[in-house]
Amino acid sequence: MVLNDTVRQALTSGHLAHLVTLNADGSPQVTLVWVGLDGDEIVCAHLGSWQKVKNIQKDARVVLSMETGGKTGILDHYLVISGRARITEGGAPQLLHQLAQIYVGPGTHFPDDNAPSGYITHITVQHIRGVGPWSERH
Amino acid sequence: MVLNDTVRQALTSGHLAHLVTLNADGSPQVTLVWVGLDGDEIVCAHLGSWQKVKNIQKDARVVLSMETGGKTGILDHYLVISGRARITEGGAPQLLHQLAQIYVGPGTHFPDDNAPSGYITHITVQHIRGVGPWSERH
Repeated sequence: MVLNDTVRQALTSGHLAHLVTLNADGSPQVTLVWVGLDGDEIVCAHLGSWQKVKNIQKDARVVLSMETGGKTGILDHYLVISGRARITEGGAPQLLHQLAQIYVGPGTHFPDDNAPSGYITHITVQHIRGVGPWSERH
Repeated sequence: MVLNDTVRQALTSGHLAHLVTLNADGSPQVTLVWVGLDGDEIVCAHLGSWQKVKNIQKDARVVLSMETGGKTGILDHYLVISGRARITEGGAPQLLHQLAQIYVGPGTHFPDDNAPSGYITHITVQHIRGVGPWSERH
Protein backbone atom coordinates (compact mmCIF):
# COMPACT_ATOMS: atom_id res chain seq x y z
CA MET A 1 0.00 0.00 0.00
CA VAL A 2 1.28 3.47 -0.91
CA LEU A 3 1.45 5.77 2.13
CA ASN A 4 0.18 9.32 1.80
CA ASP A 5 2.05 12.36 3.11
CA THR A 6 0.16 12.73 6.40
CA VAL A 7 0.87 9.10 7.29
CA ARG A 8 4.53 9.37 6.21
CA GLN A 9 4.89 12.52 8.31
CA ALA A 10 3.39 10.82 11.39
CA LEU A 11 5.64 7.80 10.99
CA THR A 12 8.87 9.78 10.69
CA SER A 13 8.41 12.38 13.43
CA GLY A 14 9.84 10.51 16.40
CA HIS A 15 6.59 9.15 17.86
CA LEU A 16 7.01 5.83 19.66
CA ALA A 17 5.28 2.89 18.01
CA HIS A 18 3.46 0.18 19.95
CA LEU A 19 4.27 -2.99 17.98
CA VAL A 20 1.87 -5.89 18.46
CA THR A 21 2.94 -9.39 17.45
CA LEU A 22 1.36 -12.78 18.16
CA ASN A 23 2.86 -15.32 20.56
CA ALA A 24 2.86 -19.02 19.71
CA ASP A 25 -0.31 -19.53 21.78
CA GLY A 26 -2.07 -16.76 19.84
CA SER A 27 -1.95 -14.21 22.65
CA PRO A 28 -0.78 -10.70 21.74
CA GLN A 29 2.62 -9.29 22.69
CA VAL A 30 3.42 -5.56 22.73
CA THR A 31 6.69 -3.65 22.89
CA LEU A 32 7.53 -0.05 22.08
CA VAL A 33 9.86 0.54 19.15
CA TRP A 34 11.41 3.31 17.09
CA VAL A 35 10.26 3.23 13.47
CA GLY A 36 11.36 4.59 10.13
CA LEU A 37 10.33 4.25 6.50
CA ASP A 38 12.03 2.37 3.69
CA GLY A 39 9.94 3.32 0.67
CA ASP A 40 6.40 2.36 1.68
CA GLU A 41 7.55 -0.21 4.24
CA ILE A 42 7.82 0.59 7.94
CA VAL A 43 11.11 -0.58 9.42
CA CYS A 44 12.37 -1.12 12.95
CA ALA A 45 15.57 -2.66 14.28
CA HIS A 46 16.40 -5.18 17.02
CA LEU A 47 19.85 -5.97 18.38
CA GLY A 48 18.78 -9.39 19.64
CA SER A 49 16.42 -12.20 18.70
CA TRP A 50 13.76 -10.86 21.03
CA GLN A 51 10.36 -12.45 21.46
CA LYS A 52 8.82 -10.10 18.87
CA VAL A 53 11.39 -11.25 16.28
CA LYS A 54 10.58 -14.91 16.96
CA ASN A 55 6.86 -14.14 16.87
CA ILE A 56 7.05 -12.45 13.46
CA GLN A 57 9.08 -15.36 12.08
CA LYS A 58 6.13 -17.63 13.01
CA ASP A 59 3.17 -15.32 12.26
CA ALA A 60 3.54 -12.29 9.98
CA ARG A 61 0.44 -10.49 11.26
CA VAL A 62 1.32 -7.31 13.16
CA VAL A 63 -0.33 -4.11 14.25
CA LEU A 64 1.48 -0.89 14.98
CA SER A 65 -0.21 1.94 16.86
CA MET A 66 1.05 5.42 17.58
CA GLU A 67 -0.08 8.63 19.24
CA THR A 68 0.68 11.40 16.78
CA GLY A 69 -0.19 14.61 18.60
CA GLY A 70 -3.14 16.83 17.72
CA LYS A 71 -6.80 16.40 18.53
CA THR A 72 -10.20 16.28 16.89
CA GLY A 73 -12.56 17.70 19.50
CA ILE A 74 -11.66 15.80 22.67
CA LEU A 75 -10.19 12.82 20.80
CA ASP A 76 -6.41 12.55 20.56
CA HIS A 77 -5.09 11.72 17.11
CA TYR A 78 -3.64 8.27 16.62
CA LEU A 79 -2.68 5.90 13.89
CA VAL A 80 -3.27 2.16 13.80
CA ILE A 81 -1.58 0.24 11.02
CA SER A 82 -2.28 -3.40 10.28
CA GLY A 83 0.24 -5.17 8.15
CA ARG A 84 2.41 -8.13 7.43
CA ALA A 85 5.96 -8.23 8.69
CA ARG A 86 9.12 -10.05 7.72
CA ILE A 87 12.50 -10.24 9.41
CA THR A 88 15.88 -9.82 7.74
CA GLU A 89 19.21 -10.39 9.45
CA GLY A 90 21.81 -7.64 9.94
CA GLY A 91 21.79 -3.88 9.66
CA ALA A 92 20.23 -3.14 13.04
CA PRO A 93 22.99 -0.86 14.41
CA GLN A 94 22.91 1.34 11.30
CA LEU A 95 19.12 1.73 11.40
CA LEU A 96 19.09 2.28 15.17
CA HIS A 97 21.75 4.97 14.82
CA GLN A 98 19.71 6.70 12.13
CA LEU A 99 16.53 6.52 14.25
CA ALA A 100 18.35 7.69 17.40
CA GLN A 101 19.05 11.00 15.66
CA ILE A 102 15.27 11.52 15.51
CA TYR A 103 14.06 9.77 18.66
CA VAL A 104 16.84 10.91 21.02
CA GLY A 105 18.43 13.86 19.23
CA PRO A 106 21.02 14.91 16.66
CA GLY A 107 24.53 13.68 17.46
CA THR A 108 23.37 10.71 19.58
CA HIS A 109 25.93 7.91 19.64
CA PHE A 110 23.84 4.77 19.79
CA PRO A 111 24.18 1.83 19.75
CA ASP A 112 27.66 0.87 20.98
CA ASP A 113 30.31 0.26 18.33
CA ASN A 114 30.39 -3.43 19.25
CA ALA A 115 26.64 -3.92 18.93
CA PRO A 116 25.57 -7.15 17.20
CA SER A 117 24.25 -6.96 13.65
CA GLY A 118 20.77 -7.92 14.82
CA TYR A 119 17.56 -7.99 12.84
CA ILE A 120 15.31 -5.63 10.92
CA THR A 121 11.52 -5.88 10.78
CA HIS A 122 9.90 -4.74 7.53
CA ILE A 123 6.17 -4.08 7.64
CA THR A 124 3.99 -3.93 4.55
CA VAL A 125 0.97 -1.78 5.33
CA GLN A 126 -2.42 -3.32 4.64
CA HIS A 127 -4.86 -1.10 6.50
CA ILE A 128 -4.79 2.28 8.25
CA ARG A 129 -7.23 3.33 10.96
CA GLY A 130 -7.35 5.65 13.96
CA VAL A 131 -8.36 9.25 14.52
CA GLY A 132 -6.75 11.99 12.45
CA PRO A 133 -6.25 13.08 8.86
CA TRP A 134 -6.02 9.36 7.87
CA SER A 135 -9.45 8.43 9.22
CA GLU A 136 -13.13 9.18 8.79
CA ARG A 137 -13.27 10.45 12.37
CA HIS A 138 -11.67 13.86 12.00
CA MET B 1 -2.89 -9.41 40.85
CA VAL B 2 -2.46 -6.54 43.34
CA LEU B 3 -1.15 -3.40 41.66
CA ASN B 4 1.62 -1.45 43.36
CA ASP B 5 1.61 2.32 43.75
CA THR B 6 3.84 3.14 40.76
CA VAL B 7 1.57 1.12 38.46
CA ARG B 8 -1.60 2.60 39.97
CA GLN B 9 -0.15 6.08 39.54
CA ALA B 10 0.72 5.44 35.87
CA LEU B 11 -2.75 4.04 35.16
CA THR B 12 -4.64 6.96 36.68
CA SER B 13 -2.66 9.93 35.33
CA GLY B 14 -4.44 10.48 32.03
CA HIS B 15 -2.10 8.54 29.75
CA LEU B 16 -3.84 7.02 26.75
CA ALA B 17 -3.94 3.21 26.72
CA HIS B 18 -3.44 1.14 23.57
CA LEU B 19 -5.88 -1.73 24.02
CA VAL B 20 -5.13 -4.89 22.05
CA THR B 21 -7.86 -7.47 21.53
CA LEU B 22 -8.02 -10.48 19.22
CA ASN B 23 -10.24 -10.63 16.15
CA ALA B 24 -12.14 -13.82 15.28
CA ASP B 25 -9.37 -14.82 12.84
CA GLY B 26 -6.75 -14.42 15.57
CA SER B 27 -5.30 -11.19 14.22
CA PRO B 28 -4.73 -8.36 16.70
CA GLN B 29 -6.90 -5.24 16.87
CA VAL B 30 -5.80 -2.00 18.58
CA THR B 31 -7.71 1.08 19.67
CA LEU B 32 -6.83 3.86 22.07
CA VAL B 33 -8.91 4.15 25.22
CA TRP B 34 -9.18 6.08 28.45
CA VAL B 35 -8.66 3.88 31.50
CA GLY B 36 -9.35 3.98 35.20
CA LEU B 37 -9.06 1.62 38.16
CA ASP B 38 -11.78 -0.21 40.05
CA GLY B 39 -9.87 -1.83 42.90
CA ASP B 40 -7.14 -3.81 41.15
CA GLU B 41 -9.05 -4.09 37.89
CA ILE B 42 -8.47 -1.74 34.97
CA VAL B 43 -11.71 -0.40 33.53
CA CYS B 44 -12.64 1.36 30.30
CA ALA B 45 -16.00 2.30 28.82
CA HIS B 46 -17.60 2.00 25.39
CA LEU B 47 -20.82 3.65 24.22
CA GLY B 48 -21.36 1.08 21.48
CA SER B 49 -20.77 -2.59 20.81
CA TRP B 50 -17.53 -1.80 19.02
CA GLN B 51 -15.28 -4.46 17.52
CA LYS B 52 -13.14 -4.55 20.69
CA VAL B 53 -16.23 -5.34 22.78
CA LYS B 54 -17.20 -8.19 20.46
CA ASN B 55 -13.60 -9.44 20.44
CA ILE B 56 -13.38 -9.58 24.24
CA GLN B 57 -16.69 -11.41 24.43
CA LYS B 58 -15.12 -14.13 22.25
CA ASP B 59 -11.53 -14.14 23.58
CA ALA B 60 -10.66 -12.67 26.98
CA ARG B 61 -6.95 -12.22 26.27
CA VAL B 62 -5.97 -8.56 26.08
CA VAL B 63 -2.86 -6.43 26.32
CA LEU B 64 -2.82 -2.79 27.30
CA SER B 65 0.24 -0.63 26.66
CA MET B 66 0.89 2.94 27.71
CA GLU B 67 3.61 5.57 27.49
CA THR B 68 3.98 6.93 31.00
CA GLY B 69 6.50 9.79 30.68
CA GLY B 70 10.02 9.67 32.09
CA LYS B 71 13.09 7.93 30.72
CA THR B 72 15.79 5.48 31.75
CA GLY B 73 18.83 6.57 29.75
CA ILE B 74 17.53 6.95 26.20
CA LEU B 75 14.60 4.57 26.74
CA ASP B 76 11.16 6.07 27.29
CA HIS B 77 9.19 4.56 30.16
CA TYR B 78 6.22 2.44 29.25
CA LEU B 79 3.93 -0.11 30.75
CA VAL B 80 2.64 -3.28 29.12
CA ILE B 81 -0.09 -5.15 30.95
CA SER B 82 -1.32 -8.58 29.93
CA GLY B 83 -4.61 -9.65 31.35
CA ARG B 84 -8.00 -11.18 30.93
CA ALA B 85 -10.98 -8.97 30.20
CA ARG B 86 -14.72 -9.29 30.66
CA ILE B 87 -17.55 -7.06 29.48
CA THR B 88 -20.48 -5.86 31.56
CA GLU B 89 -23.46 -3.94 30.17
CA GLY B 90 -24.34 -0.41 31.26
CA GLY B 91 -22.55 2.32 33.16
CA ALA B 92 -20.43 3.63 30.29
CA PRO B 93 -21.58 7.29 30.40
CA GLN B 94 -20.82 7.56 34.12
CA LEU B 95 -17.33 6.08 33.75
CA LEU B 96 -16.58 8.14 30.62
CA HIS B 97 -17.65 11.30 32.44
CA GLN B 98 -15.36 10.46 35.35
CA LEU B 99 -12.43 9.74 33.01
CA ALA B 100 -13.08 12.87 30.93
CA GLN B 101 -12.30 14.97 34.01
CA ILE B 102 -8.79 13.48 33.94
CA TYR B 103 -8.20 12.96 30.20
CA VAL B 104 -9.78 16.19 28.94
CA GLY B 105 -9.96 18.39 32.02
CA PRO B 106 -12.03 19.31 35.06
CA GLY B 107 -15.56 20.40 34.25
CA THR B 108 -15.73 18.54 30.92
CA HIS B 109 -19.28 17.68 29.93
CA PHE B 110 -18.97 14.34 28.18
CA PRO B 111 -20.69 12.26 26.97
CA ASP B 112 -24.02 13.75 25.86
CA ASP B 113 -26.92 13.38 28.27
CA ASN B 114 -28.67 11.03 25.84
CA ALA B 115 -25.68 8.71 25.47
CA PRO B 116 -26.51 4.98 25.45
CA SER B 117 -25.69 2.94 28.55
CA GLY B 118 -22.97 1.05 26.66
CA TYR B 119 -20.45 -1.41 28.01
CA ILE B 120 -17.61 -1.54 30.49
CA THR B 121 -14.45 -3.61 30.06
CA HIS B 122 -12.88 -4.95 33.26
CA ILE B 123 -9.30 -6.19 32.98
CA THR B 124 -7.71 -8.48 35.56
CA VAL B 125 -3.96 -7.94 35.43
CA GLN B 126 -1.83 -11.05 34.96
CA HIS B 127 1.59 -9.73 34.00
CA ILE B 128 3.35 -6.35 33.93
CA ARG B 129 6.32 -5.53 31.70
CA GLY B 130 7.87 -2.49 30.03
CA VAL B 131 10.54 -0.02 30.97
CA GLY B 132 10.22 1.94 34.22
CA PRO B 133 9.87 1.43 37.97
CA TRP B 134 7.78 -1.71 37.26
CA SER B 135 10.45 -3.49 35.22
CA GLU B 136 13.95 -4.86 35.52
CA ARG B 137 15.10 -2.37 32.86
CA HIS B 138 15.30 0.84 34.87
